Amino acid sequence: MTNHGWILERRPVEKLDASCLAWREMAVPDLTPGSVRVKTVMLSLDPTNRIWASPAESYLPPVPLGEVMRGIAVGVVEESADPRWKAGDLVQGMLGWQERAVVPAGSLNGLPPGVTPEQWFAVFGHIGLTAYFGLLDVGQAKAGETLVVSAAAGAVGSLVGQIGKILGMRVVGIAGGEPKCRWITEELGFDAAIDYKREDVGKRLRELCPAGIDVDFENVGGEILDACLARLALRGRVVLCGMISQYNAGSQPPGPKNLANVLMQRGRIEGFIVLDYLARAGEAFGKLGEWLATGKLRYATDVVAGLEQAPAALDRLFSGANRGKLMVKVADLPESL
Amino acid sequence: MTNHGWILERRPVEKLDASCLAWREMAVPDLTPGSVRVKTVMLSLDPTNRIWASPAESYLPPVPLGEVMRGIAVGVVEESADPRWKAGDLVQGMLGWQERAVVPAGSLNGLPPGVTPEQWFAVFGHIGLTAYFGLLDVGQAKAGETLVVSAAAGAVGSLVGQIGKILGMRVVGIAGGEPKCRWITEELGFDAAIDYKREDVGKRLRELCPAGIDVDFENVGGEILDACLARLALRGRVVLCGMISQYNAGSQPPGPKNLANVLMQRGRIEGFIVLDYLARAGEAFGKLGEWLATGKLRYATDVVAGLEQAPAALDRLFSGANRGKLMVKVADLPESL
Repeated sequence: MTNHGWILERRPVEKLDASCLAWREMAVPDLTPGSVRVKTVMLSLDPTNRIWASPAESYLPPVPLGEVMRGIAVGVVEESADPRWKAGDLVQGMLGWQERAVVPAGSLNGLPPGVTPEQWFAVFGHIGLTAYFGLLDVGQAKAGETLVVSAAAGAVGSLVGQIGKILGMRVVGIAGGEPKCRWITEELGFDAAIDYKREDVGKRLRELCPAGIDVDFENVGGEILDACLARLALRGRVVLCGMISQYNAGSQPPGPKNLANVLMQRGRIEGFIVLDYLARAGEAFGKLGEWLATGKLRYATDVVAGLEQAPAALDRLFSGANRGKLMVKVADLPESL
Repeated sequence: MTNHGWILERRPVEKLDASCLAWREMAVPDLTPGSVRVKTVMLSLDPTNRIWASPAESYLPPVPLGEVMRGIAVGVVEESADPRWKAGDLVQGMLGWQERAVVPAGSLNGLPPGVTPEQWFAVFGHIGLTAYFGLLDVGQAKAGETLVVSAAAGAVGSLVGQIGKILGMRVVGIAGGEPKCRWITEELGFDAAIDYKREDVGKRLRELCPAGIDVDFENVGGEILDACLARLALRGRVVLCGMISQYNAGSQPPGPKNLANVLMQRGRIEGFIVLDYLARAGEAFGKLGEWLATGKLRYATDVVAGLEQAPAALDRLFSGANRGKLMVKVADLPESL
């Protein structure tokens, strides 16, 4: 039985790419009691992969040099040494950027019946939980309020905007390029889009949010965040979900200039990590499933074929090439599923 | 009957000083029903005076050019056309930088019995409410947590640190110069002080807050805020009370670089304006009065004599010359009080 995968060999200075990662053939560890061997089917690529490769302290320990790159994936149980799982089960967990993983049985979750790996990553999983709890719990979003979402055509952003519409909010998305802007307004139902590559974001926010921004669901950081802070409404909330514009910066870029407006508006900037909401996942899955089934929630996937492509594919997030959820297809699902 | 005061003639670019303000003799308006004429006794000088003079949108409209500079003051009622007040009453309100003001009766508050104008501004009034509600309500401060206070020898900071000690927190103050650092540790009971003029604030925060900062009561902004963000503990709160280091900047200075740590630590930066807490003032005054009476709360005042000195005195806040509450004595209290 073979295994191949990507080993983190060097810390990235800017991009996390093939200069930091090495493709290796590796042994598959033996099963020990309580562990499960899983064959990877679909690997999720996320902006936070870049954070995990960094040596800086974050919400998880940095991936150790010389070890398999950390990654969330869906796979099929090949062999189980634990009563919770049996061969053929479809599971998700931290399988890493590799073809096969031996992991503790308790670190895995099953997928809801009938949900494909693509749907799991695009609508449920960490993406769905991030959008749902970020907007409702951290953002305290309410009907009638104005929501601005950055990286609006991305996996999280596209869900956040649609959930905002379901709640009865006015939703403005910030995305790069006309096709993405058309997609979020014409197909996903956002009220308006700002093309940050062509338009003056601050000027457009003034036009589109005349009463200010009640909730900024922030995925980008940098100048986009700064423009949103300048337009914050009274008691406006910034859900600090991600700052993708900053992760590849070789040195620490300067922060937002408009923090004074947070003071004036009694605003709030709140950081949030989806791991804190895992215990409440069922609550979100119920709603997301219902919205998906009734056609209120749409999604797009950007599926790259072949684990060997993972480092190159990751850059699609940072260059803005992807639309919807980016993932890598590592192997076919068994016929039985 | 004469009146003199300071008129805002020009918007400040950097400092709000005599180049922007003009000393004028003015008429005293006639009393109309519902209004009260008050003779100013003590004028509070606050960092927010600089904000009020700016043309930028803030939590109150900018002081119009050509009008008396806005200011909070304690005064004595000279004549009243409203049953709520009578001649001789000691009151506080937005009397402005002038010797006499005619204001709506409903805009005034009485001082608690036995409280002097100095005590009012140093322990109660907007300063006490800011410290009390900022720390307890916005900061959600708890026993056993680590509190960092910037501008720790200032009016608000010196109270915040002492309230933190009363609550059972570990308190680190950031102040400029050895006398202030000695004062807050030796006389006010702070656990430690950082002299930002001599010491590396980031390095000292790492030493003094090994488990991170649970509450940063932020009065300064800029590099001090940035250093605190870098040390934020899990679910740490930044009470964004003021950013005095930024107010005199001619152009917008860059913001904090360490916002990513707010994300990683699930931290919160929350702006807050004391005006929102006026309805709950009684709650704070009761506690503050009790702590003052039992010797748990100490204060210092920096009283400058003569309203003509107000513009020059204001700069004491920005140069860091003052210790405790800065105010201008405009007139003697009547013998009867």
